[in-house]
Order: sequence, then C-alpha cells, then structure tokens
Amino acid sequence: MVSVSIIGGSGYGGGELLRLLLGHPQVEVRQVTSRSHLGEYVYQVHPNLRKRTQLKFIDPEQVEPVDVLFLALPHGQAQLKIDQYAALAPKIIDLSADFRLKDMALYEKWYGQPHAAPGWPAKFVYGLPELHRAEMAAANYISGVGCNATASNLALLPLVKAGLIDLDAPVIIEIKVGSSESGAEGNAGSNHAERANVIRTFSAYGHRHTAEVIQELGLSDVSLTMTAVDLVRGAMATAHARVKPGVANKDLWKAYRAVANENPFVRVVKEQRGIYRVPEPKIVAGSNYADIGFELDESNGHVISMCAIDNLMKGAAGTAVQCLNLMLGWDESAGLDFAGLHPS
Amino acid sequence: MVSVSIIGGSGYGGGELLRLLLGHPQVEVRQVTSRSHLGEYVYQVHPNLRKRTQLKFIDPEQVEPVDVLFLALPHGQAQLKIDQYAALAPKIIDLSADFRLKDMALYEKWYGQPHAAPGWPAKFVYGLPELHRAEMAAANYISGVGCNATASNLALLPLVKAGLIDLDAPVIIEIKVGSSESGAEGNAGSNHAERANVIRTFSAYGHRHTAEVIQELGLSDVSLTMTAVDLVRGAMATAHARVKPGVANKDLWKAYRAVANENPFVRVVKEQRGIYRVPEPKIVAGSNYADIGFELDESNGHVISMCAIDNLMKGAAGTAVQCLNLMLGWDESAGLDFAGLHPS
Amino acid sequence: MVSVSIIGGSGYGGGELLRLLLGHPQVEVRQVTSRSHLGEYVYQVHPNLRKRTQLKFIDPEQVEPVDVLFLALPHGQAQLKIDQYAALAPKIIDLSADFRLKDMALYEKWYGQPHAAPGWPAKFVYGLPELHRAEMAAANYISGVGCNATASNLALLPLVKAGLIDLDAPVIIEIKVGSSESGAEGNAGSNHAERANVIRTFSAYGHRHTAEVIQELGLSDVSLTMTAVDLVRGAMATAHARVKPGVANKDLWKAYRAVANENPFVRVVKEQRGIYRVPEPKIVAGSNYADIGFELDESNGHVISMCAIDNLMKGAAGTAVQCLNLMLGWDESAGLDFAGLHPS
Amino acid sequence: MVSVSIIGGSGYGGGELLRLLLGHPQVEVRQVTSRSHLGEYVYQVHPNLRKRTQLKFIDPEQVEPVDVLFLALPHGQAQLKIDQYAALAPKIIDLSADFRLKDMALYEKWYGQPHAAPGWPAKFVYGLPELHRAEMAAANYISGVGCNATASNLALLPLVKAGLIDLDAPVIIEIKVGSSESGAEGNAGSNHAERANVIRTFSAYGHRHTAEVIQELGLSDVSLTMTAVDLVRGAMATAHARVKPGVANKDLWKAYRAVANENPFVRVVKEQRGIYRVPEPKIVAGSNYADIGFELDESNGHVISMCAIDNLMKGAAGTAVQCLNLMLGWDESAGLDFAGLHPS
Repeated sequence: MVSVSIIGGSGYGGGELLRLLLGHPQVEVRQVTSRSHLGEYVYQVHPNLRKRTQLKFIDPEQVEPVDVLFLALPHGQAQLKIDQYAALAPKIIDLSADFRLKDMALYEKWYGQPHAAPGWPAKFVYGLPELHRAEMAAANYISGVGCNATASNLALLPLVKAGLIDLDAPVIIEIKVGSSESGAEGNAGSNHAERANVIRTFSAYGHRHTAEVIQELGLSDVSLTMTAVDLVRGAMATAHARVKPGVANKDLWKAYRAVANENPFVRVVKEQRGIYRVPEPKIVAGSNYADIGFELDESNGHVISMCAIDNLMKGAAGTAVQCLNLMLGWDESAGLDFAGLHPS
Repeated sequence: MVSVSIIGGSGYGGGELLRLLLGHPQVEVRQVTSRSHLGEYVYQVHPNLRKRTQLKFIDPEQVEPVDVLFLALPHGQAQLKIDQYAALAPKIIDLSADFRLKDMALYEKWYGQPHAAPGWPAKFVYGLPELHRAEMAAANYISGVGCNATASNLALLPLVKAGLIDLDAPVIIEIKVGSSESGAEGNAGSNHAERANVIRTFSAYGHRHTAEVIQELGLSDVSLTMTAVDLVRGAMATAHARVKPGVANKDLWKAYRAVANENPFVRVVKEQRGIYRVPEPKIVAGSNYADIGFELDESNGHVISMCAIDNLMKGAAGTAVQCLNLMLGWDESAGLDFAGLHPS
Repeated sequence: MVSVSIIGGSGYGGGELLRLLLGHPQVEVRQVTSRSHLGEYVYQVHPNLRKRTQLKFIDPEQVEPVDVLFLALPHGQAQLKIDQYAALAPKIIDLSADFRLKDMALYEKWYGQPHAAPGWPAKFVYGLPELHRAEMAAANYISGVGCNATASNLALLPLVKAGLIDLDAPVIIEIKVGSSESGAEGNAGSNHAERANVIRTFSAYGHRHTAEVIQELGLSDVSLTMTAVDLVRGAMATAHARVKPGVANKDLWKAYRAVANENPFVRVVKEQRGIYRVPEPKIVAGSNYADIGFELDESNGHVISMCAIDNLMKGAAGTAVQCLNLMLGWDESAGLDFAGLHPS
Repeated sequence: MVSVSIIGGSGYGGGELLRLLLGHPQVEVRQVTSRSHLGEYVYQVHPNLRKRTQLKFIDPEQVEPVDVLFLALPHGQAQLKIDQYAALAPKIIDLSADFRLKDMALYEKWYGQPHAAPGWPAKFVYGLPELHRAEMAAANYISGVGCNATASNLALLPLVKAGLIDLDAPVIIEIKVGSSESGAEGNAGSNHAERANVIRTFSAYGHRHTAEVIQELGLSDVSLTMTAVDLVRGAMATAHARVKPGVANKDLWKAYRAVANENPFVRVVKEQRGIYRVPEPKIVAGSNYADIGFELDESNGHVISMCAIDNLMKGAAGTAVQCLNLMLGWDESAGLDFAGLHPS
C-alpha cells in the first residue's frame, strides 16, 4: 500500500479526493488537514464519509512524511510552501492553479501577480492524462487542471489533434457550470435564493482558465464565456469553431472516435434517438468520464464541439487520482470505477 | 395619496413590501432605509425594481414623518426604537416578530429573553386579516405574522372555527419551506451546493412560530416540524389532527368553503382530476393567496389539512399590505392583484 | 371595454394570455377554447386563475364574433382556418409561427412544408413592438414572435440599429432556455427525472427561430445554439459578434441606452457590484421586461451581447398584449404592470 | 462467477440493478430484457453505462437459464409468469410489489384485486436485510421492498425493536420523495414545468406501501402521507410517535446505535453542529445507506424519527443486491461500495 496525505481536505476538491483515495485499493490515507475544521471528524464536514473513516482533520504543520502528498489548497497558497511540502514526500500532486502554467509571464498576466516560486512550475507535468499521459510515468510532480479548462481542452482535442481547425482562427467557448465551482465557502451570489434558477453569465470573457487552453492547445484567439446554471455538479463546454475547407462529418467522426479509443475516460456521445443524444453533465456526475460530441453545419463549416464533465471529478479530483495511477504505473482506472447515475 | 416609508428595505420582506407599495394605486412611497446598502439605488439590490423607482436607500435616522410607517427589520430591533418610530407616524405596520405575541411570558419562553418594550405588544393587532379583520379598521398598530404560523393557522382555521377538532388533542404540523425563509444574508447551509436538492428537517420541534399558533387558535398540544426543500418561495403546512366523532366529509367541505367565502385571498383546492388537486406553493408564488384543502380518513377520523402560501407574500409583505388596506378602509385587495403564474 | 376571445387556451402561451387579459383594465374576455379540456373550468387547467374567472373551455366551433381574436394554437393550425377566424373579428393577434415569416420560400425552408395560406402572412405585422411599433397603430393583424428569436433580436438590436456590427459577419448566439418552452404536453425528455439538472444542447444549429432573426435584422451568417437548463421560465440569449474597427465601450453604452429609452420594456443591466450585474431570466420571470447588457473585449473587438426574457411573457403572451395595446392606441404598458419577483 | 439475468431492464429500478451487477466482482450479467427498447444497446437507454457494457436488450422470451434471475417488472406482471421464471433459475429476486405481502387478504385490500399466484408470496422472504437477514442465507426467493416502506420501516425499527413505542398507538409518517419514484414513463404531472418547484401532497393517506409497514412492524394505526418535492433521487420519512412513559433521550440513543451497529448500511446522524445534523437524502444518493436520526420532545414524549434513503438504491436495487450477497453467503457489501457524493 502506498501512503498518502492531503493538505487541505475540507473544501469540495479535497473532500472528493479523500472519497476517492479512501476507496482506492492500493492506497492508505494517513492524514488530512484543515485549519478551519481542526479536530473534527472528516465525516462531520463530508457526511458521505460517515462509516467510511474515523480520520480527523489535523493541523497542516503536523503532516508526516508519506509516499505521495496531495495538495488541495486555495489558489496561491501551495506556491508559498512548496519547498516545505516537497520535503515531506518524493511525489506531489497539486490540485490548485499554482503549477499549471509554465510561462511565468502568462501566469502573471492571468493571475495578476508574480509567482512566488517561479522555479517550480517547470517541474510539474500539466495534469491532464489525455494530453500528457506518457510523461506521467516518469513524473514526480503533477499539477491539477482547471475544470473549465478541462472541458474546453477535451472539447477541442479531437479537432486540434486531427488538424481539422486552424489554430489562429477564433474559437468561442461557452461554458455552463454548476454551483460547486464556487466552492464550499460560498458568497453572496451563491445564497440559494439568489443562485437557484439562474442563467447568470458571471464572466463574459477573461476567465483565468483561458490560459490553460492557450498553453495546452496552442490556440491564439480563444475566449471562454462562463454562465452559471441551476445544478450542483457539472461543467459543459460548447466550443464554436470553423473547420478547414473540405472537412466533412466523417473526418470528425474519425477524430472523435480516435480520442475516445485512446483514453479510457473519454466517450463519444452522438445518438440519433432517445433522450441522451449529446454529452450532458448530469450523466457523468460522480464519475471520471468526459463525454464529447459534435455537430457540423456543412453549409458553412461551423463546428460545435461539446464536452461534459463533473467539475469536481474529471475537472479536479478524479483526474488527480488518474494521474496518481499513471505516475505509479497502476491501472489508469483504479479507484475510479463509479459509472455515474441514471437518472440523477 | 397616503405617504409611507419603510425602515429596513434591503431584506426579502422589505423588498417585497416595496414592490407592492410602489404598485399600490393609493400609496406614495417616500423613503426606504438600509444601513448596509446606504446610498445605493434600491434596484441595485432588488433588480426587479429597475425602471420602477429611482429611490435610493437612506439612513434610518433620516426618515421623515409620514402617514404610515412600515418596519421590516430583523427580529428584536423594532422593539428597541418603537417610541422613536411612533413619533414619526400615526400608524405603524411591523413585519417582525416583535409585537405578535401578547403574553410577555409566552414571548420570553419562545424568544429566550424579556421583551424590551413590554407595553407595546398589546397595542398591536395581530396582523392576520382572516382572524382579526374587524379590529383592523380601528387599529393604529398592526403586527406582522410568522410565515409558518400563517400557513399553520390557515390550515387549521376551518377546523377550529367550525369546532370540528378538540383543542386539547395533539396536532402535528409538518411544514416544508423554500430558501427565501433563510433571508438575504444566507448562512453556511444556504450555500447553493449544500442547499440544492435538500430534504432537510432543520427544526424537528420548538420552532418559534409555534407560539403564534398557540396564541391565535388556542391549541394546547401542537408541534411544528420544519423541513427545507429545493424551492425559493413557498411554505406548505400539512396538519394532522383527529376530528371529533361523527364529523364527516360534508362537514369539512362546509367549514372550508365558509372560510374561503369570507376571505378574498383564501381558496379551497380539492380536485378529483388534473395535475393540481391539492394546495401547492408553486401556484401561489408572488400572489397573496392561501390555498387550503383537506383529506379525511373516515375509518379513524384522521384529518390532513393543507395550506400553501408564498412565505414572502401571504406570509409577510402581502398580508401587511392587506392589513394596510383594512386599516385605511380601502378595498382589501388593492395593490394585491397579481394572480400567480402557471407554470412557475 | 373591448371584447376578446382566445382560440387555444389550454397551453402555456394561451394560459398566460388569459391571465393577462383577465387583468387588463380595458378588456373583457368572452370565450376561451380547448378541445382536450372541453367543459372544464379554466382554473382546473390553470390553477392560478382560481377565484379569478368562472369561464369554462368551449369548443372552437362555438366562438362568437368579438372585437379582437387571439389565436394560441400549435404551429401549423392557424393557417388552416385563418379565413374562418378572420370572419369572427376585425382584428387578430396570433401567437404561433404561422404568420411571422413574410417570404414563403424562407417559411418552407425552415418549416419543411409549403404554407397553407400564403396570401396571409403579408397582412400581418411581425409582432415585436421594438421593431415595428409604428406600424401597429394601423394594423388589423399582428403575428406572434418566437421566444428565442425575441431574445436574439433584442440582444442584437442595439448593435444593428447603431451600425456597430457588420451584417455579413458571423454571429453566434447561444441560448439557454427553461422547460416551459417544451409546452404543456411534454415529451420523454421533459419527464422531471430526465429534465432536472440538465445542460442539454438539444439543437446545435438549425433552430426554426433563426429565420426570424434573419428576416428582422438582416443578418446573413447567424446561428442559434439551444441549450436546455434547469429552470421553468426564461430564455437567455448570449450573442457573440465582432464590432467594426474603432467601436469602443462608450459607443455600446450609447446604443444600448438608446434602445432602452425608446422602449418601455427594455432595460440595460450592467453593474459593477452586487449580485445582479448582467441580465438574468430569473429576475424578469412573470414580467414583460427584456433585460439587455454587453461586454466588449477591446483587445479584439469581440462583443458579447445578452438578453434575458420570460419566454412566455416577452417571448409570447406579454408581447402579444403589448401589441394589442399599440393596435388599439392604448397605453403600451396596460395590463403588463407586474414587476417580477426578487428572489424567485 | 455467478450468472444472472434481468427481466425488465429499461426502467429506473432495472437500470440501477444493471449498473450494480455490472460492477459486482462475483457476478456476470448474461441477459437483460426490454420489450420497448428491443435491440437497443442498454447504454442508449441508460447512458451512464456507455463504455461499461455492449449488452443489448432482448425479448423476455429469449432468456436462458441462469444461476439467479432478477425481476424488475411493473407491479402485477411478475405474478402472472412466476412459474415460467422459476423454471429458468433456482434463485429469484423480484423487485416488484408482487411477492412482498404474505397475507393475501392484505394484498387484495391494498392492491385492489386478488393475487394471480397466491401460493407464491409465502415462498419469498421479505427483502429487507435489516429485518430478515438470518432467513436470507437459506432462501431461494426474495421479494423486493417498497421504497417508502423501507424509509418508514427503518425510521421506526429502533423504536419498535427496543420496545420504546406502543404498537397500538397512532404513528404518522410524512414522506417526501423525488421524481424518480414516478418511473421512467412519467405522466402529466411529471412534466418538468409542472413538477419542478413542487411541494405536492399527492397521497394524503392510503399509499400502498403502508401495507408493508403494517406487516413488517406490526403497527395497527399507521398512516403514510406522501409529498413530492423537487429532487430526482431520494425518499425521506419523518415518523411522529409517542414514546412510552419514562423513555428518555439516552434510551433512544442506545436503540438507534444498536440498529446501526448491527447493520452495515445503517448510520445514525445526529450532530450538534455543521450543516448536516440530520439524515438527508442528498447525502445518500447513489449509495446503499439508510441514515437514521431522531428528536425527542421530553415534555410530552413526542418522538420524531427520520430515515433518508435513495429510493432506487436502498429503496430498490441496492437492497436487492444486498439480498443477493446474503443469499449467496458473500460479503454483504459486495458491489455496494459507492459512498455517495458531497456535495450533490
């Protein structure tokens, strides 16, 4: 059994990670930290873990050396103590935005301040297996992924990988998200009476996750428009682009199927009948799947590519466990076997 | 035109009151106060009022004399300054719990501390027209009503008024409510991700509104069990009692119809077909209606009496405007003509 | 009082129309038809109308002559009997898609079959006052509007009217809608367990309402992508375009304010603080308002224009009553005074 | 590996069963039937199973002999062909109501017609392990459980087992349920626009599951009041009873803890702080847990006992798999390891 601990276990990402690791057949969870819930049983904060663990939240300073350390802190905090954390474990997986961007100028542009540990991001593999699987086997440090970036990157991956779109052309990505993206702390706008029934475009352009799409896919003119809808878990990206002249439906089918065949958690959803004809977040809630699909308007080459994920799973904790599996040479799907629910 | 001002206009009750008074044909709204939103346009807090008013929130100390003063403060605050408020207007309608209970011992029992102005509650008529309409024409001070108390009192009114149940027998009231009852401030449990999809029995017994049911109906063994469900507006009371021996369905029909006939905002809902056979909060959202209905198990006398209201309307601001109309001798329905939406 | 009747009153559009007309100060509702609910009280189908009317649904063949006849039938039916309806009333307002498109080739392209009464559409004014107010005073026949077309047309109106975008450039409109758009009949996908929590892109491109955007605004490369979300009432259009070189934020402010100033039911929502900074359908539910707003990325001219409406109100019945008011020379807002709710 | 097949796999209960059995380490799923979806891939109906199985729905007449046969048919159908099914497998687990009630007079009273195979129910063990675990090891036939009956029986089990309430006293059970209880077929009232935002008391008393509470717990005066709320998965029972004189909080703690200790899927939830202080369906969605809790009003002995379950899991398919495990002598939790989600 490999020993792991989690720094920052009271948020939604940390809680989901804890759930997955507690159920992982090759992992033993040693310690979990939370300053705000110090001394409480983790099941008092994450009530789904009642009867699953008797762990209590401890102070981050009490964490002991382990095989793999997970960091699930608010953005900006991990970079402040990364040397200290690195002394605790030979391998680290971080869920925050701190080590995703490799170009420190890009980081500063999107996060508004210089990076506190600029030598570290280069040591981290960007944590999306669909893009960096091969590098992970040899990695000691793996970053997290932005949930909206993940939905965007996987929506566009088939188009980019097969060279069906021009990287310089404008790509508009409309993303609809659930309330768990706002985190466990909440804010005035997440008060249920204000947040229920919304279709709220809280960020028309300029969302930080845009940087991860630029970095990973090489697009030069891409925008993410973020709209909150009434749902707890889920992120849905709908990307609008124009395919290169001559690209037809069969080319798209081939490109999407190829990506699904190479990646155990990617599925193509494109049905002619039934209720579920396109990717939908409600179907993947709780699972690590990314469902992708597309529609092409052959009259003008307008392609609409979709990707549905659970923002806390494939968009955060699920992908982190997938990275753990790859880093340790295990079955990529270990501990990630939940299929999702129908209906949910 | 009668001039009115509102002390405390940034909460949900105050905002709803403002909406109704702005649309009232015989009323002119002079001033609205809010310390936390001082200087802001009211439509910045209540965006439904955009293009309806250019009023800005002022400091409570700046309120000038008016014909009728409405108080929509958090519980416990109005009693601290009631003499000051009474100097501003000959007539006051208060939405809080401060002047509802007449017996100061009962107040102290349910609210946990002595009343700060114990001479005042007796001057206030309890603000439910269905129980105190006649007294309102001569009143200068009218209290608000508890939303859950109102759903309970109106569910039981036909049974009590017609003498169909014994006042000493146990009455169990199950109340399901929407999130607007938690107020605009919210709390950890009202964060959308935690509050969506709930069936949360947050108060099994001992809810403060119980005192208003005891006072108004004279019941001696009554309990309110409060459960939050996924809805913004609405309170639904389901009361369980046993009718006196010999009481049959026709007696119940007669009792419920009588109450509906005497009260313009009470309707009996008891259909044999269609989707809406029983009272439902979603149908009365935004309106001042209280829909009531019943089912009798003739085998054992178990009667289940229901009442559906919009907690911010019939349970608060709507009833307050109804009281205004009665106090000033106007049409009881003035300014309360919205029918509610189907579907909603 | 002007007498009106409604052909087709059991659907959501017809029910909403009935609610508005019953509350209109200058209108008397004579008859309402429904084949499927023949003989039932209208409040048995539309329970919000209980205690508001004792009308019963009658057979369409029993409709008597009136001043104004409203048609609220499923698409394709009004055109089959338009001569018969025209014999009943000198003025007709139709809510369906039958008389919206003026070019019969365009109609056939988008609706898949030839029009049954091709001489009639030209007699109808397209029923959006913000585009055709002047013509309505002299009109006898006014068509309805598509709800998604209305959200799109009003989102783009300031840009087109002020000449800020090129009509030949691509415009991508992402529309998110509530379940009332599916109608009272429902379908397999609208079963609550399947429809709750969705982010379902049910029409990537090719939605019929696109034709109304092409006709009314003269755009040549426009697409509507439809996504269903968990909400009952509401349609939200987010349009993506590129402004002409040199267009700045102040030009947009001017264009949007001009449209709002000229139209009583259009409001600009663009706040720097608070919860409601952009247009949101939940704020306009039940009202006739269309809230519009925008964001400009000055680095590349990408403008994101938003419009939020209640699909049954501004997107259907509310606009129809607004048209009635204009056709009869009444106050444009008569019977449309409901402000909407906060929260809802 | 034990071979199993499912008769009736397109409904929600059958789909959930299929999901569980596909993930069960000791089971091989051979065949699944559906007349309405004959020939379709099961993932076209249950999209969460995409990439999990290539099974297609077959005709029920094509089912071949297996070790264990599961029946997930609409109520009333299994009894018509039970002899035929029994010829296919030595062991049967039925999810319907057909073999739950042992007294054929009780069956006829609650289901309105005589049983078609009156000799069979006695051969079936009632399928709730918390009540019949010991009998299951030797059983060949196990019935399903009613979801609402299960929430009720588990809410009351500690009180009955410890003798804390009088079996002849009135017990009122208020049950709130999600929309998946209405089934995949849906009905007029389950159309999203009508079903969203509801608090709908669709059955005040007389629900069929009452019979299972009477049979299993021996109560003589019990009623179930059913209220639909806006949620997909979940059933929450709130039972109101009076404890025997002298029963105190500590007796209740002891009784509830005893039941939780004896049953791996029962948990006591009764916290003094945090958001989740009482049982809630949203926390157990997708899991096989039954969370129980209580509140005692010591002034009058009124005890409020709660039980939250996922109606499709602990209330149907999850319990069926738990029965399979017990019948075959396996680990009771095999294939039922999903913890549930926070938040969800």
